[in-house]
Amino acid sequence: MKILLDTLGSDNGASELIEGALMALEEKDFELTIVGNEEENKNIVNKRFENKINFVNAIQVIDNNESPTKEIRSKKDSSMRKCFDLLNEDYDGFLSTGSTGALLTGATLITKRLDNVARPCLMVVLPTLKGQTIILDVGANVDVTSDLLEQFAKMGYIYAKNVLGKSDCKVGLLNIGVEEHKGDSLRLETYKKLSSYPYFKGNVEARDVLKGDFDVVVTDGFSGNILLKSLEGTVEFFNYMIKSKMSKLDSETLQMILPLVKSMSSGMDYHSIGSAPFLGTRKPVFKAHGSSDRVAIKSGILTLIKFIEQDITNKIDKELKNE
Amino acid sequence: MKILLDTLGSDNGASELIEGALMALEEKDFELTIVGNEEENKNIVNKRFENKINFVNAIQVIDNNESPTKEIRSKKDSSMRKCFDLLNEDYDGFLSTGSTGALLTGATLITKRLDNVARPCLMVVLPTLKGQTIILDVGANVDVTSDLLEQFAKMGYIYAKNVLGKSDCKVGLLNIGVEEHKGDSLRLETYKKLSSYPYFKGNVEARDVLKGDFDVVVTDGFSGNILLKSLEGTVEFFNYMIKSKMSKLDSETLQMILPLVKSMSSGMDYHSIGSAPFLGTRKPVFKAHGSSDRVAIKSGILTLIKFIEQDITNKIDKELKNE
Repeated sequence: MKILLDTLGSDNGASELIEGALMALEEKDFELTIVGNEEENKNIVNKRFENKINFVNAIQVIDNNESPTKEIRSKKDSSMRKCFDLLNEDYDGFLSTGSTGALLTGATLITKRLDNVARPCLMVVLPTLKGQTIILDVGANVDVTSDLLEQFAKMGYIYAKNVLGKSDCKVGLLNIGVEEHKGDSLRLETYKKLSSYPYFKGNVEARDVLKGDFDVVVTDGFSGNILLKSLEGTVEFFNYMIKSKMSKLDSETLQMILPLVKSMSSGMDYHSIGSAPFLGTRKPVFKAHGSSDRVAIKSGILTLIKFIEQDITNKIDKELKNE
Repeated sequence: MKILLDTLGSDNGASELIEGALMALEEKDFELTIVGNEEENKNIVNKRFENKINFVNAIQVIDNNESPTKEIRSKKDSSMRKCFDLLNEDYDGFLSTGSTGALLTGATLITKRLDNVARPCLMVVLPTLKGQTIILDVGANVDVTSDLLEQFAKMGYIYAKNVLGKSDCKVGLLNIGVEEHKGDSLRLETYKKLSSYPYFKGNVEARDVLKGDFDVVVTDGFSGNILLKSLEGTVEFFNYMIKSKMSKLDSETLQMILPLVKSMSSGMDYHSIGSAPFLGTRKPVFKAHGSSDRVAIKSGILTLIKFIEQDITNKIDKELKNE
């Protein structure tokens, strides 16, 4: 298995990404190609896993400040563009912390969509009270139609059934109330379209997503991103408050509650998510947070490998063609 | 000061609402008119605060299942409609746990908008790391334009400056990235319009709202509702996890950490918010959660009283006319 890692565009620099990839190599056997500043990357790797790692040099970076969707087309020597071009050859998967917009454009124009897919979408798996719930789209498509949301629902359903093993998969539409008449015109239209699918179980409010009654929550990329980042921000806020309260405790009390605090925050550990796949592309393209640390990158690469091993791309393709 | 309380449409029944109102009466001197099932309500009050409470009978309820926006027009004997009609007479403010859609319709058609207001919007004040931040709209207007968002920004700015005392008030646009080119077409248009206001400080991501760098966060009612409810859901999830971990502790450890857990959750206590005002109406209309308990209702009524005492309606009216 051959995996591509783009080391440009991360908030934490190349070393955090590479250390994460090396941690993944300690757990799984695969071939890693690191695309970025070759000299710098070689120094970071420092001959570890020597026979499993290749380097490709690229110093041009696609950043968030200009128009990333244009740049992926024009900057042919950028690390991200090189990864997309290599992926089309004999690579199996690609992970980047770069611009979501550029990745979506690259995934659509270079990797290309599966036959029956109108637009790829970005999904995450959240830990909930009852297990795991898929949210999609979480940021790839901000201006959408009810037809697109219908397709996201189908892809999410297929992923949940096949990857997460949800045989009785329940799909919900993210909305501001559970009643059928709730929401904006997009939601009203989508509700009607989804009603013909037996696995569609109605609207779900943002406050109920983590309860886990729905296996798949469908929404546009704008609202999905707000949902996800509001959740992340609240967890950060909690962690900050816990730390500030703990700093005022004596060491004996601290010793006593530390395991409790750790076990609490592990349930909301977004490091264990690590990355988000684009669904609907011909080969897997994974987006990781720009601020990902090595643990998040390791976890992201391991998820990408699982995605490849379980042949999700073909499963989605087959199921969409069967419909 | 004369306050109206609608006791129909709450998830927890009339008694929870009335007990909350009585708790508010213990702290503040005002005249309370309770509108709902008169006999039931009189039994609940049981002659407490006898000279400060009036009863109005209404048994028709506007529920969330039908079309609440139509019902507020047609059901003239409903508790909510009666409250709106009374508010137009000599009452000072109105609090309801009923349908947001019906309240918005009533506030717009019966209470009516201030001269320069296109549509009233619903706002909440969130506790953040740096104090308090206003979010608006959080659910009143789901299909909006950039003109509407511009007006929400103005009203939020006025509220933050006058009520929260934010002299150097910073207004942000909720978006999926901080860069100017991020977001859907609505956000791109709105960004351009807001750029001419000196208090507009750019886009803010959902994950950064609780950091408190922005005093006012402007968004459409759909995304605002997702933001708020995702935050609430995450807090609920945390509280559930804390409780389930704590139930496994021995009583000595429990005793030790209980004050810590309490002080942590007090920082995220959404009871202390209690209610959300509609901004832009001629008299204050407040919406409280359908699931509000007595503490939330008490807090909601006290906020409504503060809103009236500080004459916010006129302050918004004057400032919008001055522009």
